[in-house]
Amino acid sequence: MSATLRNDLLLRALLREPTPRRPIWLMRQAGRYLPEYRATRSRAGGFLEMCTNPEIACEITLQPVNRFPLDAAILFSDILTIPHAMNLGLEFEAGEGPNFERPVRTSADIARLPVPDPGEELKYVIDAVALVRRELRGRVPLIGFAGSPWTVATYMVEGGGSKTFGQIKRMMYEAPRDLHRLLEVLAKSTILYLNAQIAAGAQAVMVFDTWGGVLTPAQYEEFSLRYMAQVVDALTRNADGRRVPNIVFTKGGGAWLKKISGVGCDAVGVDWTTDLATARAQVDGRVALQGNLDPSALFAPPEVLRAETLRVLESYGAGAGHVFNLGHGITPDVDPERVALLVETVQAYQVPPA
Amino acid sequence: MSATLRNDLLLRALLREPTPRRPIWLMRQAGRYLPEYRATRSRAGGFLEMCTNPEIACEITLQPVNRFPLDAAILFSDILTIPHAMNLGLEFEAGEGPNFERPVRTSADIARLPVPDPGEELKYVIDAVALVRRELRGRVPLIGFAGSPWTVATYMVEGGGSKTFGQIKRMMYEAPRDLHRLLEVLAKSTILYLNAQIAAGAQAVMVFDTWGGVLTPAQYEEFSLRYMAQVVDALTRNADGRRVPNIVFTKGGGAWLKKISGVGCDAVGVDWTTDLATARAQVDGRVALQGNLDPSALFAPPEVLRAETLRVLESYGAGAGHVFNLGHGITPDVDPERVALLVETVQAYQVPPA
Repeated sequence: MSATLRNDLLLRALLREPTPRRPIWLMRQAGRYLPEYRATRSRAGGFLEMCTNPEIACEITLQPVNRFPLDAAILFSDILTIPHAMNLGLEFEAGEGPNFERPVRTSADIARLPVPDPGEELKYVIDAVALVRRELRGRVPLIGFAGSPWTVATYMVEGGGSKTFGQIKRMMYEAPRDLHRLLEVLAKSTILYLNAQIAAGAQAVMVFDTWGGVLTPAQYEEFSLRYMAQVVDALTRNADGRRVPNIVFTKGGGAWLKKISGVGCDAVGVDWTTDLATARAQVDGRVALQGNLDPSALFAPPEVLRAETLRVLESYGAGAGHVFNLGHGITPDVDPERVALLVETVQAYQVPPA
Repeated sequence: MSATLRNDLLLRALLREPTPRRPIWLMRQAGRYLPEYRATRSRAGGFLEMCTNPEIACEITLQPVNRFPLDAAILFSDILTIPHAMNLGLEFEAGEGPNFERPVRTSADIARLPVPDPGEELKYVIDAVALVRRELRGRVPLIGFAGSPWTVATYMVEGGGSKTFGQIKRMMYEAPRDLHRLLEVLAKSTILYLNAQIAAGAQAVMVFDTWGGVLTPAQYEEFSLRYMAQVVDALTRNADGRRVPNIVFTKGGGAWLKKISGVGCDAVGVDWTTDLATARAQVDGRVALQGNLDPSALFAPPEVLRAETLRVLESYGAGAGHVFNLGHGITPDVDPERVALLVETVQAYQVPPA
């Protein structure tokens, strides 16, 4: 039996239940801006070595939660664990980002992709989830995550990061059925993966669609949103006698929030280019919202950071359904003192009644 | 006296006057996808060498107009000519993009920035405009351009391209007055520069705001749109007895089209992430629209490219005020045959009456 969850603000806010204050966690909260992370990293070797070692992944996951009174932990891992498990020769070169030795370009490449068994090839992730959940001892909920099928596919087809997404867009225009087959394999894999994370102890899950925003509106629906909808639809709804809320986040998806909120998810992430008031009008009470401070506001002097944080809190307006977060991941050069101030400001904010 | 303009479709469409068909030109139409461009480039040396030599800039400007029946020429130049003239040590490293030896970081750096005299430090651009205008002999209009103050400032402060814009955002949050002073110098310089291009023969001008989309809505208004409004407001309205239309384009600005259309510009560029029907509803007849085929659609097989092109044409709807373009610059790996097909498809399209 798991320890009772003592701080369930995140889970309640994601389900739009009233909370005395708004919960806060930060995308990439376990990361290079923390000296303890950098120390662990230099001990562990590389990035993949940290992800694939459950003890180290657990240690890193807990670092920000131990340092700041955050309202959630998010598993330290990467959105490329699934293609890594598909044996495409993933490497993280220092300062270069991910690189696949064997990118996926042809229908034959796609036909031979396996659907990884989370209990086998991704066991290290599932073990890390179980370990973190145990070590958290009910302090805060644990968020599991995966990349969206579209976003993961961009790395697999491009062979790494990209500015123009020329390879995958070529596939989209020349061989859309191939791309759909790739996205189907990824959607299936993601469902098994997230449900295994939930079974192992994840109390909420998030789907990161980092690159949906490079598509036209029609392509976004056909190649990204559709597969996130499949994933959301197949997620385990309850675990440990509680609802397991899910969050869908498309960076650059501000214009499509209404459509995103219609896929059956509980909450939608919003980047900083859309005001939460605008976002809230779009989703019209169907989902909770998560976001959306500009990560660069953490460079601001304390009084400016506080003002920007209050502006975000107020832009959501009165009532339930807001989880405070950044609009994108925290960057390596942030001063941890600023994060402390941010967390304190959010947690001191009195939520106006609905 | 200049030669009479024989194809004025672009100028009329930008002013929302009816045209028998929709004009087309392509952002970065003079570029690496053309073998004749690559030949000129290897002869000239580097990118800056091409920009700063009026004969070569003229030759390159005319290449796409000679190859395809495009409805406009756009000057071959770069958005960084102004900071180059400010003596910041601009270099274009092969495959690396622009790099400033002396980035602008402090109020002292900003205080010493000159406003370049277009007739002196930017004479090579103005000479190129005059030369192209003469060589075009009235075939199609010539478009002049500049970067937006915000976009040019990002390169000056970051010292080159950036993914996170950490340096300029730090300045925005820590020292907003410094940033405003920098943007004022750039707005002044841009006004002189564009008006000198108009005086030398540019028949339309465009302001490229490539990086406005990385801002919050409030920051976009304060740091980008405001200065583009200053520029638009101070532009020469008529030359050669004709109105000189202007175009404002913010990549990633789909959510702000209504505000952009209110700054007094004649036309607004739209990237491919916003449907033209949605864009047109936003701007509500105040401006013409320019765009917005996904540049990657040029990788599609001919029948798919044709269908995507017709989809864009139809998404604008009936009536005047649409200039066909890509949603961003053409990429180097495009087959020129596809461009020929695109131009042909747009020019064969019968505009439905309003």
